Amino acid sequence: MPIELYWGSGSPFAWRVMLALEIKNLPYESKLLEFSKGEHKTPAYLKLNPRGKVPTLKDGDYVIYESIAIMAYLDRKYPEPPIFGKTPEEAGSIWRVISECESYLFGEGNKIVRPIFFGKGLDRVEEIEQAAQSMRQELQAIDGRLGPSNWLVGNEISAADITVFPVVQLLLRAAAKEAAKPLKLGLTPLAQTFPHIARWVERIEALPNYQRTYPPHWR
Amino acid sequence: MPIELYWGSGSPFAWRVMLALEIKNLPYESKLLEFSKGEHKTPAYLKLNPRGKVPTLKDGDYVIYESIAIMAYLDRKYPEPPIFGKTPEEAGSIWRVISECESYLFGEGNKIVRPIFFGKGLDRVEEIEQAAQSMRQELQAIDGRLGPSNWLVGNEISAADITVFPVVQLLLRAAAKEAAKPLKLGLTPLAQTFPHIARWVERIEALPNYQRTYPPHWR
Repeated sequence: MPIELYWGSGSPFAWRVMLALEIKNLPYESKLLEFSKGEHKTPAYLKLNPRGKVPTLKDGDYVIYESIAIMAYLDRKYPEPPIFGKTPEEAGSIWRVISECESYLFGEGNKIVRPIFFGKGLDRVEEIEQAAQSMRQELQAIDGRLGPSNWLVGNEISAADITVFPVVQLLLRAAAKEAAKPLKLGLTPLAQTFPHIARWVERIEALPNYQRTYPPHWR
Repeated sequence: MPIELYWGSGSPFAWRVMLALEIKNLPYESKLLEFSKGEHKTPAYLKLNPRGKVPTLKDGDYVIYESIAIMAYLDRKYPEPPIFGKTPEEAGSIWRVISECESYLFGEGNKIVRPIFFGKGLDRVEEIEQAAQSMRQELQAIDGRLGPSNWLVGNEISAADITVFPVVQLLLRAAAKEAAKPLKLGLTPLAQTFPHIARWVERIEALPNYQRTYPPHWR
């Protein structure tokens, strides 16, 4: 029985898991849920994931949700290639980057991305620009890590990279929208603002099967 | 060279790591930082942890911060007894509980705890009571898990328990304050509102060396 992955187009959380599955070369059955049709809120799906969020992964009888937990599960169940490091020190640093992404990058990112995508709260310019400033500070630190190294931790792509990557992509997509033009975000063009991140994005985009993970409705 | 732990009294994040060290029976040198003296913002400390937060753990030359990352590091470096489960499935479920704690419990908890502790924003009664309602929903789910089981995942105490525990303790402490009296939090007395959580708290408080982890300024 193959792994089943319930996901939604454009969910950065689902994207992480898809990248993990590709890196580990694990075949899976894609269960794309249409948010607009409420397919993530059906009784059948809520039985798998009571929060009605994506992604959810089903591996035989085992059901797991929350993107980071799914990556941790996959790495324990299918250890090769490892995405949580080869040593305790690498593992610790990978988890640190993940914690920092969730605590400092993602929340601030949402304050920028949500108004731009959904048109609500766009008038709170000061709040958005303040979030962009925090964001730039976090991205500056990430750019610094990627100067001397291809990947955020160690010599291989890891869960740190694939946790941060969809957040960066979401931000870039938001910054390119018409609604973002009047805002002083200072995030793009990426090659100028954060050149090492720009090359790291290209590196991930060049992974085999990357295209399979790309949100269909973004094309 | 023993492990060094930089921590602050009352930090739920530091408390997690202290519990992990006790469960793993790892000796460590306690470096208690006084927030009121700004000891977490000195140049020497910022070299270890550029965010100036606690906890930070130093193990030989290796420095790691962010509570959950520290627990993950300790478990890889000193595997016995495991705090991230014995099987991939247990590990996944432990990480799920941790993700849920960070995403749904902790943020809402802050909306209650911070105004009560610091006296700022106490007039936003509706916002606080709304957060309390979300909190009760999350705690209800946790209480449900603890009905048939002593611990949140599996048969032993794990990183899931010690991630959630300090958040619950912080909430209880806030709910007992004079400033909380006029608010309808519906969280206490715990033995009535969430009886299984109440017994689980007692179970953790009965751990050997628990007293060593208890915030000194709470006594």
